[in-house]
Amino acid sequence: MPSLPLAFRDVQEASQRIGAHVHRTPVLTSSYLDNETGGRLYFKCENLQKTGSFKARGAHNAVFLLEPGIAARGVVTHSSGNHAAALALAARRRGIRALVVMPSNASEIKKAAVAGYGATIVACAPTLASRESTTAALVAETGAQLIHPFEDYGVMAGQGTAALELLESQPDLDSVLVPVGGGGLLAGTAIAARGMRRGIAVIGVEPEQADDAMRSFRTGIRVGIDAPVTIADGLRASIGERTFPIVRQCVDDVVTVTEAGIVSAMRLLWERMKIVVEPSSAVPLAGILEGRIAVAGRSVGIILTGGNVALDALPWQGQARTPAAPATPASPG
Amino acid sequence: MPSLPLAFRDVQEASQRIGAHVHRTPVLTSSYLDNETGGRLYFKCENLQKTGSFKARGAHNAVFLLEPGIAARGVVTHSSGNHAAALALAARRRGIRALVVMPSNASEIKKAAVAGYGATIVACAPTLASRESTTAALVAETGAQLIHPFEDYGVMAGQGTAALELLESQPDLDSVLVPVGGGGLLAGTAIAARGMRRGIAVIGVEPEQADDAMRSFRTGIRVGIDAPVTIADGLRASIGERTFPIVRQCVDDVVTVTEAGIVSAMRLLWERMKIVVEPSSAVPLAGILEGRIAVAGRSVGIILTGGNVALDALPWQGQARTPAAPATPASPG
Repeated sequence: MPSLPLAFRDVQEASQRIGAHVHRTPVLTSSYLDNETGGRLYFKCENLQKTGSFKARGAHNAVFLLEPGIAARGVVTHSSGNHAAALALAARRRGIRALVVMPSNASEIKKAAVAGYGATIVACAPTLASRESTTAALVAETGAQLIHPFEDYGVMAGQGTAALELLESQPDLDSVLVPVGGGGLLAGTAIAARGMRRGIAVIGVEPEQADDAMRSFRTGIRVGIDAPVTIADGLRASIGERTFPIVRQCVDDVVTVTEAGIVSAMRLLWERMKIVVEPSSAVPLAGILEGRIAVAGRSVGIILTGGNVALDALPWQGQARTPAAPATPASPG
Repeated sequence: MPSLPLAFRDVQEASQRIGAHVHRTPVLTSSYLDNETGGRLYFKCENLQKTGSFKARGAHNAVFLLEPGIAARGVVTHSSGNHAAALALAARRRGIRALVVMPSNASEIKKAAVAGYGATIVACAPTLASRESTTAALVAETGAQLIHPFEDYGVMAGQGTAALELLESQPDLDSVLVPVGGGGLLAGTAIAARGMRRGIAVIGVEPEQADDAMRSFRTGIRVGIDAPVTIADGLRASIGERTFPIVRQCVDDVVTVTEAGIVSAMRLLWERMKIVVEPSSAVPLAGILEGRIAVAGRSVGIILTGGNVALDALPWQGQARTPAAPATPASPG
C-alpha cells in the first residue's frame, strides 16, 4: 500500500486547531428510524455547524494552517456554495481578506450569505473557464492563497474532525456513512474513522445521477461528470485528483441513490427528527432506506452535512401529501 | 405568601422519575440571533424531545406517579395535540392502556400520531360539551385516570424538568422565557428556575389574540378566552385554575406578541438555527424581536416547546420572499 499524504495525526491536529472556532455539534438519534431500519443510527448534525455546514471545519483548518506571511495576502476560492461561506467566516476569524469568485448569475441569497461573513465577491461569467481564469488572475494580482473546496489536505483533515467527534461520542460504531461530491469529506472521514477504530467500515453515498465516485471507485480509474443533474446541490462536483487515492485506499464502498429517495429521506429527517437539512445531507439515509446499505443490528454513524436550503421552495411541495407525519423521536445520542 | 401545592423538590423528583424515558435535549445558541438582539440566548430544544414536544415530560411524570392499582385501570385525556401523543407514549412505557377522546373531525395526521404510540382513540362530537361528557363517561365506565394536559401537579412538575436541565447547563441565566397556554409549562418552569437560581426572572409569552394569561396576571383575576384565533395552536387553552395561582405568585411578567411576529420568529428559527419548530415555540423569540422583552447584555434561556408542524402548509408560503436567509450559526450551548 502506498503511503498516504493525509494521516490520522493531521485530523487530530486539525481538531485542536479549529476547536475554538467551530461547534462540537450534537449527535441525535431517532427511535422511529431505528425501528424502521433495524439499525442504531447516530446522526452527527453538521447542519447545526457554524455557517450551516461541515465546510466550516475544513475552511478553518486550512486558513489557520497558513504561515503568517502567506495568510496576510488573503485567501481566495471559487465555490459559490457552503465552502464559500465557510471560507469567508474562517478568514474573518483570522483577520484576513477572503475573495470569492462567483458567477454573475449566482442567487442573491448565496451572495448575501458570503457577503454577510465579510468576504469580497468577485463576479465572473457563468462558465467554468471564466471562473478558473478569474480566480487565477486574482491569485496572480493579489498573492492570495487559493483554498480549494476539497483538493487540499488541510481542508480534508478539517472535514475529518466531524467523524473524530462522532466516534468520541459513539466509540462502538460499525460503520460511518457520508455523502460524496468532490470527496473531501469522505477522504477525511475515512482517515479519521480508521484512526479511531480499527475495522470500521466507511461508505460513501452519492446520487445515481452524479455517480462518478462510484464508477471511479469500482474501476480504479477516476472519471468525472460535467454538471450532473441532481437535487443534491452539494454533490455536483466530481471526485478529485487528490481525494480519489485516499478514497480508493481507505473507503470500503461507494453506493448510489435515486433522486426520489433523496427527497423522501430529506422529508423524513425534517418530520421525524425536527431538523432542517439540505438534500445532500439526506443521501446516506436514502442509501439505507433504498436497501443499498445493510444496517440491521448495526451501529451506524451518519454525517448530516448541512442545512442551507431555501424555505420557499421545498422539494415536496406540489407532491401528494404523505399520510403519517406525526410525532418525533429525535434526541441527543 | 400562601404556600404552594408544587415545590422545587417535586421537579427534582420528576427529573429522576422520567430520566430513563425522555431525552435530555440539547441547548443550542445562535451567533446571528445574539448579534441581532444583543443578548446571549440559550435555546432548550424540546422540539427534539420524544413525541416532538416537552409534553412528554409531564405525561411521563404523571403516569409514573400513579399507584399500581390506579395505573392498572389505564389513563384517559381529551387533548388532541401534543399532550395526547405524549400520554400515549408514557402509557405504553408503563404498560397500561391510554384512551384519547378526539373530536370526529380531528385531522388524520393527529389521529395517526396518537394511534402510532398505541393509544385507543374514542371519537366524540366536535364540541367542548361532547368532549367532556365523553371523557367523564369513559372515566366512569373504565375507572381510567384522567391526566389533564395542565391542571395536574404531576404534569406541571414534569414540565419543569426542561428548565431544570437548562439551568444545569447554563447556571448563570438572568431569565427564562416560555410560551403560555394553559400555564402548565410556565408554572413548572417558575418553580424549577427559582429553585435553581435565586432572583432569576421567569417570563411567560403568549399571542395577543390569546391574551388571557396576561390579563389574568395583570389584574389578579383569572379570565378565559374561548377558541382564540392564533397560529400558535399549542397556546389556545386558557390559563388554568390550578396553574394560575403558581403563575401569579412565582412569575415575573406575562407579555404578548403579534401573529406576524410569531411567523417571522418561527421562520428565523428554521433558517438560522436549522431546526423545525412549531409556531408556539417561536412565541418567546417573537417577544424579544418585537421589543416586549429586553435582553441586551443578558443571558436568557428560551424553551422551544415543540416541532410538530405540517410540512405541506408552512405559514410563510405565499408570502413575499425575505431577502437574506443564508448560513446559520446554530450550535450546542
